[in-house]
Amino acid sequence: MGISLARLKGFQKLTSTNKALNKWLNILELQKCEETIISINEALNRVAFSDILAEEDLPRFDKSAVDGYALLSIDMIGASQYKPIILQITDSNQLFSKQATPIWTGNPIPNTADTVVMIENTKRTKSGLEVYIQLPKGGNVSKKGEDVKAGEVGIRSVTRIKPHHLALISALGCNSIKVSRKPKIGILATGNELITSKDTPLNGQIFESNRVMLSGLCKELGCEPLDLGIAKDDSSNISEKLRMGIKNCDAVITTGGTSVGKLDLVPEVVNKIGTPGVIVQGMALRPAMPTGLAIVEGKPLLILSGNPVAAIIGFEVFMRPIIFRMLGLNFESRPIIKGILTRKAPTRLGRKTYLRVRVFQKNDENFVEPISARGSSVISSMTRANGFVVVPANREGVREGELVSVQLFGNVEKIKNDV
Amino acid sequence: MGISLARLKGFQKLTSTNKALNKWLNILELQKCEETIISINEALNRVAFSDILAEEDLPRFDKSAVDGYALLSIDMIGASQYKPIILQITDSNQLFSKQATPIWTGNPIPNTADTVVMIENTKRTKSGLEVYIQLPKGGNVSKKGEDVKAGEVGIRSVTRIKPHHLALISALGCNSIKVSRKPKIGILATGNELITSKDTPLNGQIFESNRVMLSGLCKELGCEPLDLGIAKDDSSNISEKLRMGIKNCDAVITTGGTSVGKLDLVPEVVNKIGTPGVIVQGMALRPAMPTGLAIVEGKPLLILSGNPVAAIIGFEVFMRPIIFRMLGLNFESRPIIKGILTRKAPTRLGRKTYLRVRVFQKNDENFVEPISARGSSVISSMTRANGFVVVPANREGVREGELVSVQLFGNVEKIKNDV
Repeated sequence: MGISLARLKGFQKLTSTNKALNKWLNILELQKCEETIISINEALNRVAFSDILAEEDLPRFDKSAVDGYALLSIDMIGASQYKPIILQITDSNQLFSKQATPIWTGNPIPNTADTVVMIENTKRTKSGLEVYIQLPKGGNVSKKGEDVKAGEVGIRSVTRIKPHHLALISALGCNSIKVSRKPKIGILATGNELITSKDTPLNGQIFESNRVMLSGLCKELGCEPLDLGIAKDDSSNISEKLRMGIKNCDAVITTGGTSVGKLDLVPEVVNKIGTPGVIVQGMALRPAMPTGLAIVEGKPLLILSGNPVAAIIGFEVFMRPIIFRMLGLNFESRPIIKGILTRKAPTRLGRKTYLRVRVFQKNDENFVEPISARGSSVISSMTRANGFVVVPANREGVREGELVSVQLFGNVEKIKNDV
Repeated sequence: MGISLARLKGFQKLTSTNKALNKWLNILELQKCEETIISINEALNRVAFSDILAEEDLPRFDKSAVDGYALLSIDMIGASQYKPIILQITDSNQLFSKQATPIWTGNPIPNTADTVVMIENTKRTKSGLEVYIQLPKGGNVSKKGEDVKAGEVGIRSVTRIKPHHLALISALGCNSIKVSRKPKIGILATGNELITSKDTPLNGQIFESNRVMLSGLCKELGCEPLDLGIAKDDSSNISEKLRMGIKNCDAVITTGGTSVGKLDLVPEVVNKIGTPGVIVQGMALRPAMPTGLAIVEGKPLLILSGNPVAAIIGFEVFMRPIIFRMLGLNFESRPIIKGILTRKAPTRLGRKTYLRVRVFQKNDENFVEPISARGSSVISSMTRANGFVVVPANREGVREGELVSVQLFGNVEKIKNDV
């Protein structure tokens, strides 16, 4: 037990998450992943590597914003509902004074016209086109370059590409764009007790569940997960898989083997395979206290607890910022909404706590219900939740009725009022 | 112009979006897409088709929630920091009174033990293990079935599968799950003016940009888009592509050719290829007024404006609910946050308006800045925005300083305070 007690002492000196993360990032000096050119059909949720400029004005010409008639605004002077002016209709693209030509939304404005009157404000009669309003010059005209001017930035570097960005990129005439390569994240589960769904569990064995969860978290952020499998609690087995991960990935995540007591092999192996190895272990964080941050061959290695909830919180706090750096993003916050706590929840002084909560909406107000769960291994405390409330380390619990900020990771339900 | 004027009159009788959508849904009577079984590695963002039950308790056995020693709580009575009790350490799995056995987080509790004391609350001495606290029976034990009991629902039907759901599914020993098949959505752009990025634009031509945008919107919701290409403003060309879409897809979206004036071919062709054809056209909605809802061979056909912003709003209002029905979901709201309008914005009485806004956070408060844009074709009014404010039809504009609800579709930036 000598080793365990020594480690225990190390663990009791817990590090604040901010201090730990900053130390890790400072030593790592991560560079943005290099660029890769992909088709816009594959670009959803990728991150633009550099500014996308407009080569030409968008729109490329003055065009009509409505269905109606192109004309000269000067000809409309004095027109009203009671006193229409009458213009001659022509199909020519060369308009003269007192003439109008039919035009549909999106059509280029004829050279000599400057305004478009909506069809609703006109009437065709035997004597010509009656126009019932007057408009200023340029009325109902989308000007050349009004959306983006030639040479201007259409999409800024490090934009996360959403469908509306795809529309703009496409409208600028691009069918491929430069994005950051997907960071490749290796994921290794460790533990003699772990089996897969192909196995029949014996007593003491559990189905491994962290790899698919962490893969999902990586995919959501635009990374490519690499499954490094399950390692036994065995130095050489862990070492071999970790080396493979470090060689082939931009970062590696491990789960299990980080508790104070348990064989505690992962940090030991990490320290053997590279320097500086583990730089922080033991966080003033609940759950996820046993999380460790390491660096091997200049690459980040995140040592997570085997408990799924602790693992998800450890990823949230430490892996997201790493991935954002690799993509060149400053930070992407989860959506944050405020709501009223439906009951008090205890937290421990000196530990930043990620409370799992369920937010629901009732009478146009948000209520925040803490999910009760005894252990950090209770996965259903996550599946019943749709957000986190982060309680700072200097608080000892949160009060019923308190207004709190929730970081959402799921859908908010609307509850019908019974009254 | 006879036809156009006739249609114009039809258009002037605009339908409220709720009434239009309900009419469409009522006639459609959509069924949930059938089930398909997929690997959990592919299940992220898919929708569970039916309840996933636990075949066994989770956890499958009483296990330790901490690193420490398994023992009998009765032996701890009276123990304190000043007066430890002393137990004999054993490695046996059969504990007797006054004995304790080392145990790590996740290990099964030995048969005869009932409690675990944390390593921090003990000390190994020559005479045995000193224990400094007393705990109730079951202390630090994760009970069998405490997460999910055998026969209970682990994941409820129509859950959108997120990483934490994958963890639970996996922990239950499943490696494949039943999800709703991806709805297949055909997307057709129409318009003689449209070209692709492979073409060199002549005057009056524009790069088609709606298909990739609508494909992205479909993918985000878990659908499979099918690109039906670009049709010329030509009945037989549109007809042929629409028939192909209807045949191969669960729903079809068209863009362009819906304005009052413009060749107006899409609704005409739709009415020719099937009944009831177009059931509503012209919405009390801004932008996206010219949107049409149709039904062909029992399948929904959404006729969108060619203007990208109108198309995105038309999709938001009418296609999302259709897709949710196909997936079996009631509704998935975008995250909604409240904020203060930084300036007034005009809206037209009698039209529900989707204002594009940029929400930013400053001094822990949310501010909502309306994006100024003249036309519905200004795509950068979307790329500069991160949310919509929906202004109801009975309002005429929104006031500076008003508290509004924003439906978020992008990331909220935190602005540093200069003071």
